[in-house]
Amino acid sequence: MKNIYNDSKTIKHLTSTQVILIGFLIAILVGALILMLPIATVEGETTTFGTALFTSTTSICVTGLVVVDTFSHWTLFGQIVILILIQIGGFGVITLYSILMLALGKRFSLRTRTLIQDYYNLDSIKGLIKFLKKVVKGSLLVEFIGALGYMIRFIPDFGLFKGIWASIFNAVSAFCNAGMDVLGPSSLIPYRSDVLVNFITITLIILGGIGYVVWFDVINTVRDCHRHRWSLSRIWKKFNEHTKLVIILTACLIVLGSVTVLIFEWDNPDTIGNFSVFDKVMASIFQSVTFRTAGFATIPQESLKATTCMVGCVLMFIGGSPVGTAGGVKTMTIFVVILNAFSFIGDKNDNVVFGKRVSYKLINKATAIITFSLTLTMALIIFLIHFEGLSALDASYEIFSATGTVGLSRAVTPHLHAIGKSIVIIAMYAGRIGILSMALFFATSHSDQNEIKYSKGCFIVG
Amino acid sequence: MKNIYNDSKTIKHLTSTQVILIGFLIAILVGALILMLPIATVEGETTTFGTALFTSTTSICVTGLVVVDTFSHWTLFGQIVILILIQIGGFGVITLYSILMLALGKRFSLRTRTLIQDYYNLDSIKGLIKFLKKVVKGSLLVEFIGALGYMIRFIPDFGLFKGIWASIFNAVSAFCNAGMDVLGPSSLIPYRSDVLVNFITITLIILGGIGYVVWFDVINTVRDCHRHRWSLSRIWKKFNEHTKLVIILTACLIVLGSVTVLIFEWDNPDTIGNFSVFDKVMASIFQSVTFRTAGFATIPQESLKATTCMVGCVLMFIGGSPVGTAGGVKTMTIFVVILNAFSFIGDKNDNVVFGKRVSYKLINKATAIITFSLTLTMALIIFLIHFEGLSALDASYEIFSATGTVGLSRAVTPHLHAIGKSIVIIAMYAGRIGILSMALFFATSHSDQNEIKYSKGCFIVG
Ligand SMILES: [K+]
Ligand SMILES: [K+]
Repeated sequence: MKNIYNDSKTIKHLTSTQVILIGFLIAILVGALILMLPIATVEGETTTFGTALFTSTTSICVTGLVVVDTFSHWTLFGQIVILILIQIGGFGVITLYSILMLALGKRFSLRTRTLIQDYYNLDSIKGLIKFLKKVVKGSLLVEFIGALGYMIRFIPDFGLFKGIWASIFNAVSAFCNAGMDVLGPSSLIPYRSDVLVNFITITLIILGGIGYVVWFDVINTVRDCHRHRWSLSRIWKKFNEHTKLVIILTACLIVLGSVTVLIFEWDNPDTIGNFSVFDKVMASIFQSVTFRTAGFATIPQESLKATTCMVGCVLMFIGGSPVGTAGGVKTMTIFVVILNAFSFIGDKNDNVVFGKRVSYKLINKATAIITFSLTLTMALIIFLIHFEGLSALDASYEIFSATGTVGLSRAVTPHLHAIGKSIVIIAMYAGRIGILSMALFFATSHSDQNEIKYSKGCFIVG
Repeated sequence: MKNIYNDSKTIKHLTSTQVILIGFLIAILVGALILMLPIATVEGETTTFGTALFTSTTSICVTGLVVVDTFSHWTLFGQIVILILIQIGGFGVITLYSILMLALGKRFSLRTRTLIQDYYNLDSIKGLIKFLKKVVKGSLLVEFIGALGYMIRFIPDFGLFKGIWASIFNAVSAFCNAGMDVLGPSSLIPYRSDVLVNFITITLIILGGIGYVVWFDVINTVRDCHRHRWSLSRIWKKFNEHTKLVIILTACLIVLGSVTVLIFEWDNPDTIGNFSVFDKVMASIFQSVTFRTAGFATIPQESLKATTCMVGCVLMFIGGSPVGTAGGVKTMTIFVVILNAFSFIGDKNDNVVFGKRVSYKLINKATAIITFSLTLTMALIIFLIHFEGLSALDASYEIFSATGTVGLSRAVTPHLHAIGKSIVIIAMYAGRIGILSMALFFATSHSDQNEIKYSKGCFIVG
């Protein structure tokens, strides 16, 4: 009897993961086929299947690496398709899976229900529809406000129609951490000194990347505070431990990244060397934020120093925070692993932060995510160097950017051969869909009461 | 009362670690001072404190990166000092600590006793002296046999006296995974086609790197088998789980490394491109084995392709097996982390191998070791690029080589400035002494019965 039970559990779990992996594969293929319609490509250009597949993948995976220029290669129809794919991808694997299941009127299995509850930090599955509605509404609202802001600059620059479209596209792309644009061939480099565009873009990227769980906790707490007239320090205390941590981690990573970029690039004439001090600081902050899986650029990435690129690879690997639009292995994943390391040398039995214990199970989950992600990234870097003859630095930057769904490139992507493009497509798909679905759908449903069936072995590490 | 108990525990644990960290620092400084004596340097050359410190560190840490040529810069006296430092370092941090404590007639604390018992896989601390004697005797015996083998080649090549000395030096250096030599300026490149030298060196490196725990388990089991006339498969089954795993992991890593080097370098005229097929295979196997923290070279490392270097960095990071002469984070450390990842996607509650459970504690320990080691390595690579203007590839190779105590260099070490040399010294010290002592002296002594003081927090990763 036990065996049968276990088997059915295995089948169900395989199905959940397969639904996601195959579902996104189909979505990517459908997107590619639509992008191959003649109506999607401007006259004089041709779209091969490879280009369509690459563009569809980069959009759904909100990566933003491109082999053709979004602004000059695709018609308005093509750009609308791309924007829809970005918005779909931006909601994330789990949100889309939930919406799909609800739309089809399917019931979640007990297991999936628990998983989704855990993932969104909900008290019960009954709150799911309400939560998802809030997610969709909130996202669209933030994108709408962002687009209005962009219009102040883009309508004068591009005229009414193109200005409005560019603003909408940029707002969605920034919030979804996609990093694609229809402004021109060189991302946001023309706006490198523009405080308004910098501010809106940075805000949208951070809001998208910080995660919905944090949003709603902050909103609810601030609302309570308003009602009870709490002090500011009281609000901070009322945040749940996840919110506090994500805010601190996000702030630390942005500051750390900005300072590093500023120091390393200070006198590099090809990036910020000739900027005013104010522009240097702003460009460094922008570069630090964009590393966190956004992928817009205000300075040419191929001119960055090797040191900046290596710090960039680390930040791209880490990415944003859980349950948002950002990619990477996520801030919290890295945090619990570092917490474990310090608990270990501090000789502590428990991993404790803000008076709360991080379970062994969660640390092992984080370790597993990092293990797979890093192994995959390293292997694909070696393949890319082997097949495309790139330098170790350019290839590393390209693949860390792809698996982290960042979209920054040292002017490498458009010149890749078919094999190189395939490697990058695999990196984007595995980095976004693979790691996200793995993070949710594996190994979170165990009760701790299971009997121990195996005696402890005698192993030595280190 | 509980607080006092905890405090005294903390102090004791700090002392154990401090004894090791400070002890080796003193040993390195004493080594450097002796190497600064005029008698240690050949006439016409001068030894600065920087050179002496670097050489002493590279010897005690059995790294093998050198800023001056061992064979032409140091007198016989200097070389003898270096060899003694290598032999001291080769025994490893814990073995030396144990020998020192026993020699001084000091008693181990209960805590240290448990740790050392665990480390050497002993039933009781009473077996420690016997075990250490076996370790010393066994090491010297293997080195002696290795030296005899080398003499067949080196006496005809260098004459009787220099031949004998070169053989002894090479045998100790290979067994201790130090990788230094007194043959000439280009490591073992002149012997790249010499089957005897290749075979002896590979064997010594593997025997040193596989760990004493494996040695004695194999010897005891084979002895039992001889007595009971067991079949070969029976012997395998009788090995303990640690032995089985280490043998499999070592074989897999050597084969994987050899095949990768062979494929990537096959038509590289600057390495193995112009070799016969037999020599290609032999050089690839040698390169694969030397990556596992030995550091000898039969092909010029600066000519290796970027792909080979990246695979090399991974192998150098992994290193050898626990409780031996090799460096790196160790095969078992990587293995349990990978096992955890697969248990995770396989939805298993326990991490099981050979029917034995790997405890969560051990996985967390392995994760902590890898976290620290990788963070340190990345940071030092970025510093080395920043201060020395090296390429990302050369700097990565140099620092992975230093923290893994490998000693391979893309012809970088001798040209470093003072700051670069300091970075490499820190890398060698932290990579050998820091990680080894961390691996043993932190976080292994907890009973699992401690009460849980903190409620489980609500965190989301991935
Ligand atoms: K992106
Ligand atoms: K070495």
